[in-house]
Amino acid sequence: MRVLRGLVVTFSKPTRVLSRAHATLTQRSFAETFGQQNRKCPLCGFFQSGDLLSPVSRRGSAVGVNVRTMAAFGGRDDDFIFRQLLDYKSFTYTYLLADRTTSDAVLIDPVVEMVNRDMQVVKDLGLNLIFAANTHVHADHITGTGEIKKKLPGCKSMIADVSGAKADVKLKHGDTIKFGKFELECRNTPGHTDGCMTFVWHQKSMVFTGDAILIRGCGRTDFQQGNPQNLYDSVHKQILSLPRHFMLFPAHDYTGQTMTTVDEELKYNPRLSKPKSDFVKIMKELTLPYPKQIDKALPANMVCGAYDLPAEATTN
Amino acid sequence: MRVLRGLVVTFSKPTRVLSRAHATLTQRSFAETFGQQNRKCPLCGFFQSGDLLSPVSRRGSAVGVNVRTMAAFGGRDDDFIFRQLLDYKSFTYTYLLADRTTSDAVLIDPVVEMVNRDMQVVKDLGLNLIFAANTHVHADHITGTGEIKKKLPGCKSMIADVSGAKADVKLKHGDTIKFGKFELECRNTPGHTDGCMTFVWHQKSMVFTGDAILIRGCGRTDFQQGNPQNLYDSVHKQILSLPRHFMLFPAHDYTGQTMTTVDEELKYNPRLSKPKSDFVKIMKELTLPYPKQIDKALPANMVCGAYDLPAEATTN
Repeated sequence: MRVLRGLVVTFSKPTRVLSRAHATLTQRSFAETFGQQNRKCPLCGFFQSGDLLSPVSRRGSAVGVNVRTMAAFGGRDDDFIFRQLLDYKSFTYTYLLADRTTSDAVLIDPVVEMVNRDMQVVKDLGLNLIFAANTHVHADHITGTGEIKKKLPGCKSMIADVSGAKADVKLKHGDTIKFGKFELECRNTPGHTDGCMTFVWHQKSMVFTGDAILIRGCGRTDFQQGNPQNLYDSVHKQILSLPRHFMLFPAHDYTGQTMTTVDEELKYNPRLSKPKSDFVKIMKELTLPYPKQIDKALPANMVCGAYDLPAEATTN
Repeated sequence: MRVLRGLVVTFSKPTRVLSRAHATLTQRSFAETFGQQNRKCPLCGFFQSGDLLSPVSRRGSAVGVNVRTMAAFGGRDDDFIFRQLLDYKSFTYTYLLADRTTSDAVLIDPVVEMVNRDMQVVKDLGLNLIFAANTHVHADHITGTGEIKKKLPGCKSMIADVSGAKADVKLKHGDTIKFGKFELECRNTPGHTDGCMTFVWHQKSMVFTGDAILIRGCGRTDFQQGNPQNLYDSVHKQILSLPRHFMLFPAHDYTGQTMTTVDEELKYNPRLSKPKSDFVKIMKELTLPYPKQIDKALPANMVCGAYDLPAEATTN
């Protein structure tokens, strides 16, 4: 059992526990990055003045104790922060999860072009971003983890070990990602790619599925080690076997929907609700165009979790 | 006090209460609309077979008692359904709210091009859509309420009486929209247009603000009776005076964010956090392009809450 940050937790099976790191550095980086700069409002082109962007003085203080989030329905679930963010260009969803008490936060599937927005949200909410995790090596956009690490050197990048991509933390099936009092269980869900991983937040009945299962759809299986048999097994064993009320948050949606549930996909997914043989046939008969970004995205995504993003990777 | 559907509720001030209607008709309409048709999956062009689209047999049965939604964080707030939907063309958010026990639902700000998607979600979740409400007469897209009423004749359209637009129910400040055990308070919030209305769901700390306040922004005030002084007063008196943890869900966002809070906007809104005189100056100095859809959208939106959508309004 490998344990990061000296925190030893005993589990019934071999498991790593990854916990908060470099909070002080994170906050200092924010001040350096945002403190003295103006920011252009993307809504209107209007520039925010510096007084609205003063550095965060201490953990959590930028928002204060009264702020609750999407989680605070009815004022009861007020112990965590959840924000769904999207990139209109690649239809990618990015998820920000945090413990309101400790301010420790995890960002899932950031997009390089949206890093400044994501960092501003993190700053406004007074969070310490300790981990930036990718569900897989994306073919349709470049991950934001490299850019985030430039801005927040204390933030650690994560990706499945199986993917072969470089990152600070290479996740294995069964690992646990800890942020404050919360934790995500890592489950290998190969099929769209070999290195696909799903993050399960049991405490909040939320699941971050990457491209393994989409809302009434699933990731394609015709490139990047794609394998429809593996995908079918992954989804049914690791995701659709969860309690039926568990909420699924995919890496993409092209129809403007933001979430689904295990129950809905078991009933209404036009591919995965079918028998395995039918699913494989459907996937093999899809004739999809070659992803526009793949030749640029794949090489960048294999390294930018660990290293600076290659300059040429950001040019369009 | 005007009371619809015979339900008399006594309030401390004159208030209308609008409650569930035509559940049976709604379900029959669903069966007629969807039961025997195939549906093309917008993700892949694959056609769903009819067996996945069998008619809902009775209220709520399409999903079952185990389904929870975004609301079910931690398994505690499992008494309601909340879905945020978006239209990528106009960047409009549509909100579906429902009581899980009675299945009564309200849709806020539907977009005409997305009505089939919205109806499919309503059907998959086994809901009875009793009201389709607009926060105002939109200038950037055509409302979906006319199309929805064609598919679900029992669903009643709603808009602020002040707007002058036609609808089944013309809402007044202080009215209450009831769906199951839940209710929305209607608050007039003029400024972007005269007829802007904000819906406050006190029970869930959620507020649907239309264009009155956007995430780190606000609606423009340079056409359609726009008035920056009125907008400033509306937002501060009717929205930002709510508890600081209340979640704000706007009609649009152009940066890929999905929600904000009263606290965040009081602190970080680059316009509305300023003194009134500064806000008015900012709004008057904006030089924004004429909305692309306005000449088509305004005439259609003035009537299609009550009548069939004019055929020419849907042509691009």
